[in-house]
Amino acid sequence: MTDESTPEFQIALSAFNGQAFTALVGATLKRFGAGIAVIDVPHRPELLQQHGYLHGGVIAYAIDNATTFAAGTVLGTNILTAGISIVYLRPAASAITATATVVGKTRRQAVVNCEVHSTDADGRDVLVATGQGTATLVER
Amino acid sequence: MTDESTPEFQIALSAFNGQAFTALVGATLKRFGAGIAVIDVPHRPELLQQHGYLHGGVIAYAIDNATTFAAGTVLGTNILTAGISIVYLRPAASAITATATVVGKTRRQAVVNCEVHSTDADGRDVLVATGQGTATLVER
Amino acid sequence: MTDESTPEFQIALSAFNGQAFTALVGATLKRFGAGIAVIDVPHRPELLQQHGYLHGGVIAYAIDNATTFAAGTVLGTNILTAGISIVYLRPAASAITATATVVGKTRRQAVVNCEVHSTDADGRDVLVATGQGTATLVER
Amino acid sequence: MTDESTPEFQIALSAFNGQAFTALVGATLKRFGAGIAVIDVPHRPELLQQHGYLHGGVIAYAIDNATTFAAGTVLGTNILTAGISIVYLRPAASAITATATVVGKTRRQAVVNCEVHSTDADGRDVLVATGQGTATLVER
Repeated sequence: MTDESTPEFQIALSAFNGQAFTALVGATLKRFGAGIAVIDVPHRPELLQQHGYLHGGVIAYAIDNATTFAAGTVLGTNILTAGISIVYLRPAASAITATATVVGKTRRQAVVNCEVHSTDADGRDVLVATGQGTATLVER
Repeated sequence: MTDESTPEFQIALSAFNGQAFTALVGATLKRFGAGIAVIDVPHRPELLQQHGYLHGGVIAYAIDNATTFAAGTVLGTNILTAGISIVYLRPAASAITATATVVGKTRRQAVVNCEVHSTDADGRDVLVATGQGTATLVER
Repeated sequence: MTDESTPEFQIALSAFNGQAFTALVGATLKRFGAGIAVIDVPHRPELLQQHGYLHGGVIAYAIDNATTFAAGTVLGTNILTAGISIVYLRPAASAITATATVVGKTRRQAVVNCEVHSTDADGRDVLVATGQGTATLVER
Repeated sequence: MTDESTPEFQIALSAFNGQAFTALVGATLKRFGAGIAVIDVPHRPELLQQHGYLHGGVIAYAIDNATTFAAGTVLGTNILTAGISIVYLRPAASAITATATVVGKTRRQAVVNCEVHSTDADGRDVLVATGQGTATLVER
């Protein structure tokens, strides 16, 4: 669905891969364009909390970053994330995919909803968290 | 101000140090007790985004974890973080300290406010983000 | 799209119309069922702030109530709203419609997204606010 | 504690009393200045939901308005509320007081925490809800 050869995707990928913390987490930008950004995070031992689930901070990272990149598809690269709200529904027992979608924008701001999905022990897709966030154009 | 020799602090520290992701980030539990938890995160190259500031996901991790541990001081260890709301005020150009404080509780839930402070280029303390979160007792 | 003759809708309508504050605001329940609740609020002089737009508190009421009723379609009537996050995008210069949709649920909790639309001076539909909220089953 | 004769308080009171919806609710501005705004809402029959408690929308109104006025003490009158997050802890069985406090600001934005207190059946003060919100200077 995403044409990874577009210049837009390549610019986003360059910014994404320029984030040292993203490399530390081991996340991947799967999709970028037309109001949508999708980020995958693997279920690595280094990302867990004390009960063997992905740490809530990893889920928060995925929502934060997917939200910012989704906003970037409609506002350009010169933006800051103003805030995010996260609801945790279930622990994540395997890899997660954060899908962020722009639901509205003004001239200077975008509002983004994000869903984080994982797979449960029976191999079924489960919603583990949702997010709502905003990003704004930086003043010059 | 915190007596690190208390059994309560040692139990919390054991849980905190049992989080692989916390070790990956390199965070430290500085204070735990009486409705307050304080977590320090250093300004390491591995934690930055593409402009040299701490990644928003690192700040979100600190708020998530400090909120959960603060709630743990009043609800015990058998809790889940239900949600957090984060406002980003400024980029963090140096190490951060997340201070989470319980502002209210019921029998099964605690509400926590969190402030994340850093130091600017002139060495002054600056507020970089605030958070509001809730944690609830897990059903048995 | 909604069959207002269903028993489910009639029970919801009875609860909705039993809210004195809803009568004071003058809101209408337009749709209820299958994870969705829609509430209309007219642009009455009594609902405005000092600049002639609908008061932010009116928009917050609409999000709060639509969120709760949407959650009720999947959790039943014995619920409490645990929290909501609201992003305000534009002032509302005319009547609003709050559409709340359940995006996920567990056995005891539902997560709901809400969009509040209005009409601008040129008669075009505009998004004035978005919300994310949760409701939980009440303990017995 | 508040000198209601100050010009600052009188200007705020004029804006507050210019809100038709505030008159419909019957709220009172009790304090305004130095990063703090306090709003009282009575427990009137017209403000209740179907179980006899203050409607969640009334609590949301109080948080929204107290947050905006608190931000106004540090940013001036030309502001818009960008968003609020609300946690509901308990139903409000009597009158409420919303106390909003600025916890941080930049040149263009203020972050505000808000606590809503009420009195329970035994006459004890109880926290019924908390809020976190932001307001920003309007572009010219």
